[in-house]
Amino acid sequence: MVWNDVRLIHSQAPLVHNITNYVVMNTTANALLAVGASPVMAHALEEVEEMTALASALVLNIGTLSGPWVEAMVLAGRAAQRKGIPTVLDPVGVGATTFRTRTAQRLLEETGPRLIRGNASEILALANLGGGTKGVDATDPVEGALEAARQLSSRWNCVVTVSGPVDLIVQGERLARIHNGDPIMGRITGMGCTATALMGAFAAVNPDPFRAAVDAMVVLGVAGELAREHSQGPGSFQVALLDQLASLRQEDLERLARIEGLG
Amino acid sequence: MVWNDVRLIHSQAPLVHNITNYVVMNTTANALLAVGASPVMAHALEEVEEMTALASALVLNIGTLSGPWVEAMVLAGRAAQRKGIPTVLDPVGVGATTFRTRTAQRLLEETGPRLIRGNASEILALANLGGGTKGVDATDPVEGALEAARQLSSRWNCVVTVSGPVDLIVQGERLARIHNGDPIMGRITGMGCTATALMGAFAAVNPDPFRAAVDAMVVLGVAGELAREHSQGPGSFQVALLDQLASLRQEDLERLARIEGLG
Amino acid sequence: MVWNDVRLIHSQAPLVHNITNYVVMNTTANALLAVGASPVMAHALEEVEEMTALASALVLNIGTLSGPWVEAMVLAGRAAQRKGIPTVLDPVGVGATTFRTRTAQRLLEETGPRLIRGNASEILALANLGGGTKGVDATDPVEGALEAARQLSSRWNCVVTVSGPVDLIVQGERLARIHNGDPIMGRITGMGCTATALMGAFAAVNPDPFRAAVDAMVVLGVAGELAREHSQGPGSFQVALLDQLASLRQEDLERLARIEGLG
Repeated sequence: MVWNDVRLIHSQAPLVHNITNYVVMNTTANALLAVGASPVMAHALEEVEEMTALASALVLNIGTLSGPWVEAMVLAGRAAQRKGIPTVLDPVGVGATTFRTRTAQRLLEETGPRLIRGNASEILALANLGGGTKGVDATDPVEGALEAARQLSSRWNCVVTVSGPVDLIVQGERLARIHNGDPIMGRITGMGCTATALMGAFAAVNPDPFRAAVDAMVVLGVAGELAREHSQGPGSFQVALLDQLASLRQEDLERLARIEGLG
Repeated sequence: MVWNDVRLIHSQAPLVHNITNYVVMNTTANALLAVGASPVMAHALEEVEEMTALASALVLNIGTLSGPWVEAMVLAGRAAQRKGIPTVLDPVGVGATTFRTRTAQRLLEETGPRLIRGNASEILALANLGGGTKGVDATDPVEGALEAARQLSSRWNCVVTVSGPVDLIVQGERLARIHNGDPIMGRITGMGCTATALMGAFAAVNPDPFRAAVDAMVVLGVAGELAREHSQGPGSFQVALLDQLASLRQEDLERLARIEGLG
Repeated sequence: MVWNDVRLIHSQAPLVHNITNYVVMNTTANALLAVGASPVMAHALEEVEEMTALASALVLNIGTLSGPWVEAMVLAGRAAQRKGIPTVLDPVGVGATTFRTRTAQRLLEETGPRLIRGNASEILALANLGGGTKGVDATDPVEGALEAARQLSSRWNCVVTVSGPVDLIVQGERLARIHNGDPIMGRITGMGCTATALMGAFAAVNPDPFRAAVDAMVVLGVAGELAREHSQGPGSFQVALLDQLASLRQEDLERLARIEGLG
């Protein structure tokens, strides 16, 4: 199942339009290229609608948001709705500042993302259940965000992923847990943003956004586990992760994928 | 011949002023440092003219353009003209959106770039011969863009490079083909932008912009071939590419350079 | 002594708020994560004060400054003063353009940085003693900037670090020289910015900013020396540096630290 998405991304090379943060632009563009997708970054109000209209998925990430970029995200998100392509929202740091919280709320209301990915504290903040986030790192245990994820999913009719040591993926009553990945992934900036970007590629080729989220998290997690074996720390891990994403084999994915709850 | 430029860059450490896109800023700065040039990134309207006045070459790249950045590019480009230093234009994604097309056109008209580098679809779009680009990847075969490159070169009196498996470099009736490089370079973000940035360094030390473009493409291509031998995928390739750019030897360049058409 | 700071950063994971340049955001975020700190990048006027209020240190870096970012730096710097957390200023390229010089001056006046780090030409420019900088590279010998550093330190009541082959750290009459590091660090973009960012983490856990500056420079220098042994050029050096920063051991720090003047 996971392999089918990987294969489709390779054959279709879907264009994924990213309006994302400065810190991870290079990282996520390379991760998208590594899995076979075609990334484009564009944020000018003058062009985001045209660019989204060319794309097969839209990724919105508020990591280094500012007024004009938020307007661009709204315009692009509406263009994605009109075209019927999936939008993935990464509400980085929501809850940490009023501006982030209001922006995330606005993006939920005005762009109708089909997928949301965040860490536990972000998902809690987004569901108005939890406290503030500490920077962009998780402070709440993942399972504690399950109810928040369910509420978000129901209220906004979308797939919600809570990233952590175990990833939760929720859509209404559907729930999957992904037991892949490596702790070192929390020591590198933008690993969550990479997961979000990959979801864009997977949602571009898979009409079931729940399955797209599961497959993206499995691919990143398995590639991370394989990369760990070839690395001595966060520097060499990042290098190895791109190498592994670009050379994933069906047999490794099937052997290493640890998905709980797909029945 | 190529080695002469490399040697001059090392001895002069030319300051190359880049107004470029967010995705590749780190990558291109490091590539410029690796070959011995001195990169500076600055985009504020308040300072671009002063910064360009200190530089030996200017690189304009519209990858993540926005209104204020375009104004800064125009100001910097005019400052480069006044000073008589070369400007290199990378029309990333031209043809994909109206904003990109208009901006590229305006930069041609108002900054008089001495060199242009793009993939085939970008060069076609710039010459108003071809259709839209798909993101920032080439969709048209390189040779199909030769006539467009010739027209661009004649009309704007500049050197035009069409990047691809074989690179075309055109100036009026002059034509060179570079057979260096490796397919993996298409799987990494910003490799074209790196070529453009390197052209800035080479044009800073070589008064013949045609030869500067040839030498920059050869250096990047040969370094890429050597890097390929030390890499297992796009992550380790990027690492090895910087290492190779920083340690290129005359004998490797002379042995591996595959330039067709310099007679 | 150095180890104590490293240990505290690991146990406290201080949130370091960075308003920095586009070129190094990814690099400095990863360096902060590697030493155990928690980086956040945020620059919107709407949120910088709230974000700084959550942080334990603020890093201001004018590498790719623009009007709105300067305003954000001022707001954040004042918020840091109100909260009593240290601000570290990196006056990248000060002296190269009027805008940079005015901005650096304004940040000195309005944000009261507790630490400043620059290369010799930047420190000279900041003290109004020296000439312009050439891009962001040092052109003046480090020792020639000692008097400028002393003046800056006295006038603005802060710790001043002059980076170079030997680093000078000055606070009033206090002076330390750090003999760590490797020449390759000058061939990679953002190495100085990384030093500045690390100072944020060290100043967050050490109430003595002079000692924080010393310890940050030693940690980066020692990690650089160890990384050099595992690298073949600037690409593999960057990878190895992150690995080394993440795995520094007390015995290596004590064995390799070469601090002159702490008596």
